[in-house]
Order: sequence, then structure tokens, then C-alpha cells
Amino acid sequence: MRVIVVGAGIIGLSTAWYLRRLGAEVTIIDPVPALGASHAAAGMIAPAAEVVWGQTPLYPLMQASAQMYPEFAAEVASAAAVDLGFTDAGTLVCAGDSADLQALRELREAQSRSGFATEIITGSAARRVEPSLSPAVAGAVHIPGDRSIDPRRVSAALLSAVTSESGFLLIRQRAVELLKDGDVTVGVALSDGRRVEADQVILCAGSTSNAIAGAPQLPLREVWGDVLRLRAPAEATPLLTRTIRGLVSGRSVYLVPRPDGEIVLGASSREDGLSGTPAGAVHRLLADGQRLVPGILDAEIADITTRARPGSPDDLPFIGRIDSGCVVSTGYFRHGVLLAPFGGRLGAELALGAVSDWIPEGAAESVSPHRFTTETTSAYPNHSPAYSNYNPAHSTRSMS
Amino acid sequence: MRVIVVGAGIIGLSTAWYLRRLGAEVTIIDPVPALGASHAAAGMIAPAAEVVWGQTPLYPLMQASAQMYPEFAAEVASAAAVDLGFTDAGTLVCAGDSADLQALRELREAQSRSGFATEIITGSAARRVEPSLSPAVAGAVHIPGDRSIDPRRVSAALLSAVTSESGFLLIRQRAVELLKDGDVTVGVALSDGRRVEADQVILCAGSTSNAIAGAPQLPLREVWGDVLRLRAPAEATPLLTRTIRGLVSGRSVYLVPRPDGEIVLGASSREDGLSGTPAGAVHRLLADGQRLVPGILDAEIADITTRARPGSPDDLPFIGRIDSGCVVSTGYFRHGVLLAPFGGRLGAELALGAVSDWIPEGAAESVSPHRFTTETTSAYPNHSPAYSNYNPAHSTRSMS
Repeated sequence: MRVIVVGAGIIGLSTAWYLRRLGAEVTIIDPVPALGASHAAAGMIAPAAEVVWGQTPLYPLMQASAQMYPEFAAEVASAAAVDLGFTDAGTLVCAGDSADLQALRELREAQSRSGFATEIITGSAARRVEPSLSPAVAGAVHIPGDRSIDPRRVSAALLSAVTSESGFLLIRQRAVELLKDGDVTVGVALSDGRRVEADQVILCAGSTSNAIAGAPQLPLREVWGDVLRLRAPAEATPLLTRTIRGLVSGRSVYLVPRPDGEIVLGASSREDGLSGTPAGAVHRLLADGQRLVPGILDAEIADITTRARPGSPDDLPFIGRIDSGCVVSTGYFRHGVLLAPFGGRLGAELALGAVSDWIPEGAAESVSPHRFTTETTSAYPNHSPAYSNYNPAHSTRSMS
Repeated sequence: MRVIVVGAGIIGLSTAWYLRRLGAEVTIIDPVPALGASHAAAGMIAPAAEVVWGQTPLYPLMQASAQMYPEFAAEVASAAAVDLGFTDAGTLVCAGDSADLQALRELREAQSRSGFATEIITGSAARRVEPSLSPAVAGAVHIPGDRSIDPRRVSAALLSAVTSESGFLLIRQRAVELLKDGDVTVGVALSDGRRVEADQVILCAGSTSNAIAGAPQLPLREVWGDVLRLRAPAEATPLLTRTIRGLVSGRSVYLVPRPDGEIVLGASSREDGLSGTPAGAVHRLLADGQRLVPGILDAEIADITTRARPGSPDDLPFIGRIDSGCVVSTGYFRHGVLLAPFGGRLGAELALGAVSDWIPEGAAESVSPHRFTTETTSAYPNHSPAYSNYNPAHSTRSMS
């Protein structure tokens, strides 16, 4: 079976990884592999800390993927012979002040209702385990064993592993059009004029998926984010040993330390369409970050990355079959790294017609690319989609 | 006459420019031309706004150089056929709050005593001429006609102009040693092993001058600075029309708008030896900058540059003859762009033995590279210098 994967972000690459195990021949198409949203991502594999109100159908997916991660990461690290910065040092979700602590208590209740066992500890207790925390931190949710990974290393390792395989090909071009035979996708036209045919095409092009002619027009939106990579001075290393997430005057901020001393500070969430790095976003990240960990101001800024995440109306991805030659796997929003094993395996199995009996009950419906279309618009015409079936209550349905 | 200029920063390049007019054959040596301190510089040609307490001997130099600037800039722009972003839109030195306004009043008195005619205007009056100023700005010193220029364009234009000349040569290598015949410099050894001989060598290597074996060991120190280049969104352009300098809770900050819409935000001043960009410096610049001009937070960060300025004990440069084959011209600290015509012409004339009757009275002594050495140590041995003659009062001597 010949499969084209459009997009070499972490989803396209993990899809290719699982396709390899299922014996497919794979061609990956991406003009700049591994430099999209995954290049910005911090790499928290932290389902409990990702709990926010009204995203209940997302949790089973996050939990399933988190459970797949240790084996996935070990195999990828082994195949590429690189360290992926995978740790299980845990997370503290910190309250910047006492008002933030109240919000944190409510969040913790939502986590409990979603089946995540977490505990609130005092600010002093938090500082005992992470001495770099500010004296102003009023309390924290402690999530021991929470994991993180370096997404840049994961992407590089996946790219190296899959492209070193015979039967694998990476084409550094942009996919501009899905080739069709009637209603059925039979290949991809590239920006250099080439046409590549295959038995199956999987669209993993993130927020650029809709720009491909003939592709299903999904209700994707670009949610821009800005992320700083910091390096603490040698005498202050390690500044942090576990992931610090926080609420600061109601705003979210996180600091993810890597085993190699790098600290990822993020993340803004903007729908302003600005592809550049706004001064205000950097100012806000540094201001909020230093409210939790004052020592970051002594660190060097090694890198500032701005990327668009592919957001969906209910923050769930779109994973499903579009026609008998095409599967879509995009819209992972801020969960692409966490959901990579889940989405990669599911997308690969969908493309090859394998049965995915391992996914949580109801997950296939939760991620269906058809869930926002009217019943009469099942063919996804290549123009503005019909969103009439979109109901904000959908995402909280299972709570009732 | 064959002359080697070591260093292709703005001082080395302006020296080469004046050497060209005096008919010399010039070889410029720099591994990465135009990427040192001048690459970070904002380009304020603003003697009055540069007045700080205790730098009186510097003012005549700054004024002399500022007067040379229009002709210098016009000739360089014409020779390279590029726009240098030269403007005379003026400067507002703004007070972030009422305490800063008091400090500004005292600064303005120092400016008056130094012969600079300036006036204090109210915050409202300042906002009338620059509507983007914060309502919190409590007042400002108005300096009409103050100039600025884009230092990156100046360097590029000088490099293009001098290297397109016959008899000019640029060698992209590091100078590692001064070649001597007895006590007399006769050339330069390069990092690739080559030896280049010349009638005269001019050292314009900024803060790296002391690293050249056989070079005079001057009391130079690295004063690191961080500078952001911002680009305001199209609908907010121009955000500023003139240079905004300010005192914000006693800290200096400036915003220099370019005719092309770029805004340079600077500058930190650090002697911590950190060659990376500290998160704290960027945080402080953005926080102080937005206190004066809130709209900068909507701008994109186009560039963050960190460089070392070559500081001297009295903030005056070192320009003078070292031996019969060597002239030094370094230590311009934060005034390299402003002093480029002055220092370039003086260094070139010194190298060629021409008479510099145009410089202000006492200027040759003010910038003497021998002013901090003991009388018995005139030969500048290549080891730690004797600073016993350094007297902090020196720099304010002419005020008494």
C-alpha cells in the first residue's frame, strides 16, 4: 500500500511512524519539515494539567495517548538513537496570588470530576519542592509523575527514523492540490508541478490543510502562540526540576524545564492573525513567568518562536475518512504533541483500513471531521463549510 | 601610503572613508564586518540628549562630530547610492512620572551649563506633538532638530563605498598580532597565518582591541547592551515621528523611529559579561518602553541584538599614536555612531601625519590613549596596564 502523508509536523511524522509498522510505503510531503506548530510546542504530556472547563470529550483521548507515550517515546528514541528529553518529574500548577488560588481550587474540582487525582498544596510546600518559586505563589496543584518531552527532538527523531527506512521518501515541496478520480482522492499535486499518486492520502497539514485545493474545508482557525526558550546561567542550573504551570492574575503561563537545562516559557494564545512575534506577548510572558519564577530574568533568551496552532471549534482534532482515498488528521490545537501517538496510530489505521478497537468508546465520533457539517453536506465541497450543526454544548455533552 | 585598518565597525569604516580622501591605499581586516557594536546601535546623533553628569570633555567632541554629520552622511549616501535613514525630526526626553520629571529638570540644567539650548514642555504639550506618548508622561525636554541615522545602513554604505574603490581590500580574517620591527608596528598577522605589511596600522577593533598580541593594553571594558527592533502594525504607522528618550523610575530608555517604520528600543547597559540576551533585560526594556509609548506592545519584534560596547574609564575614546607605525582609535563606548565622522577623520589624519587643526581645543589631550598611564610606562607593554594616573575627577576637570 502506497500512502502519502501531507505535512511533516509531529502528527504527520507520528502517522508515518505507525504506517511503517503496518507495512505501508510512505511518501511525506512538506516544504519545511518539523518547523510548524510542533517546533514551538513545549511538550507537556500532561492530561490532568490540560483540564479546562468544557472539554470533557477531549480527556479520554489525552489519557489514552498519555498511556501510549512511554512505549512510543522509547521506541522512537531507540530507532533514532537520540535522547528525547522525556521526563516524569511532575507538574506544579501554581497560583500567582490568592485570587488565582481560588480559580485553581475550582479547576482542581473539575480535574477530580474528570477522574484525575490531584492535590492542592500550600505555597510553602510548593517552594520546598521547587525552591525557585516566588514567595508570592499562594498554592499549587501537585501532579506527581506528569511527563514532558522535547518536541523538537521528537520531530527530528521521527524524521530521521522514518526517512532512513526503505520505502520511505521525503519530498520538500508544498502540496497544492488533491488529485481526484471522480470523487476519490488518488494523489497530490506539488508546488513544483509534480504529481504524486498513491492508494491513500493522509492530510496532516495542520492549519494549512484548508489551503490545499480539493481538501475538505474544515472549521480550522489559526491560534497563534509565542514561546521563549531560556537558558539559565550555569550557577543557577537547574532552576526548575519539574513543569511549572500557573495562573497569574487569571492568565495561563507555563515553564517547562528540560533535562539539558533549557526552560520553555509559554504560551500566548492569539487569534489576531499576526505571524510576527508581538512585543506585547513577549512582555506578558516574561512578566507573568517572573511572577512565578523570578530567576528566569537572569536566564538568556535562546530562542523566540511564533507559530499558529490549528484550532477547531471544540478543541478536538479532526481524524477521519473524507473519501475512499483520503483521510484527514489535523486540528490538534494545543495538544499535538500529547496526542501524537493516539492520532498517529488512529490515522495510520484509518488509512490502511485496520480496525482501531483500542480507542476509547465514543472517540471516533468525538474526532469525526464530519461533526460540524449539516447532514446534507457530507461531501465537503471546497468552499465555506456549513457549520449549522455546531453546538457549543457538544463539547460538554458527556458531562450531563 | 599603505594603511591597514583593523576592524570594520563604524569607526574602522569611517576611518577608511577618510583615508580614501587622503589618498591612502587601505586594507581593512575584520572576520565579520559591520556586525559588532554598530550593528546594535540605535543611531542617535544627539549631543544634547547624551549629556549626563560628569562627561563635560565629551561634549565638544560630540558637537564637532554632529556638525560634521550632514555632509558626511550626504557624501556616504551618494557614494553608495543608498538612503541612510537620516532625519532631523528631533528628540523628546520624557519623564515617566513626576519623580522622573524632577531628575529631568536637573539634567536640563546640566545641558544648559554645557551650552545646549533645550526647553521643558508639559506632558500634554509632548502628547500634542507625539500622540502615542502615554498619558502618564509627566513632561519632556524638547530638542528640535535632533538627528538620527540607521547605523546598519551607514555601515553597509561605508563598506560598499570603500571596498568598491581601487586600492581598497577587505580581508575577512581576525587580526591576531601586530608585527613589529623593534618597537615599531609594521603590519598585522592574521588568524589564517597570513602576514600583511603596511606603512601604518590603525586599530579600530572596539572591545576586542586588547586581544591582539602586541597591541596597547588600554583600560577598555565590555559594556553589554541589548536592543530590540520593532515594527509597528501598518495601521499604527508611524507610531512615532521623533526620537523618544526617557527616564522611567530613574532608568534610561529610548525609542528611535526610522523613516521606514522600524522602531529601535534600547538600551540596556550591563557589565555582567553575558554575551547572550538576558530575559531580564528584554523584560525591562519592554516594560519601560511601554510606560512611555504603550503602543509598542502591538508592534512585532523584528530583531533582538546583544553586543558589547567598548567602554573607557571616562567614557571618552582612545584616539592617538602608539608608535611610529601604529595609531589606535577605539573605546567609543555608546557614542561610536555619533563620533564616527570625528573619530574617522582624526584617526585617518593621525595615521597619515596630517594636521588636525579643526578639532576642538583640548580634544587631542581628552582622547589621548596615554591619559591613564603612569609617566614611566609610555611604551604600553602588552600586559596589565598601570592605571595609577586614573582619576575620576579627570572627566569633570573642565567644569571647575
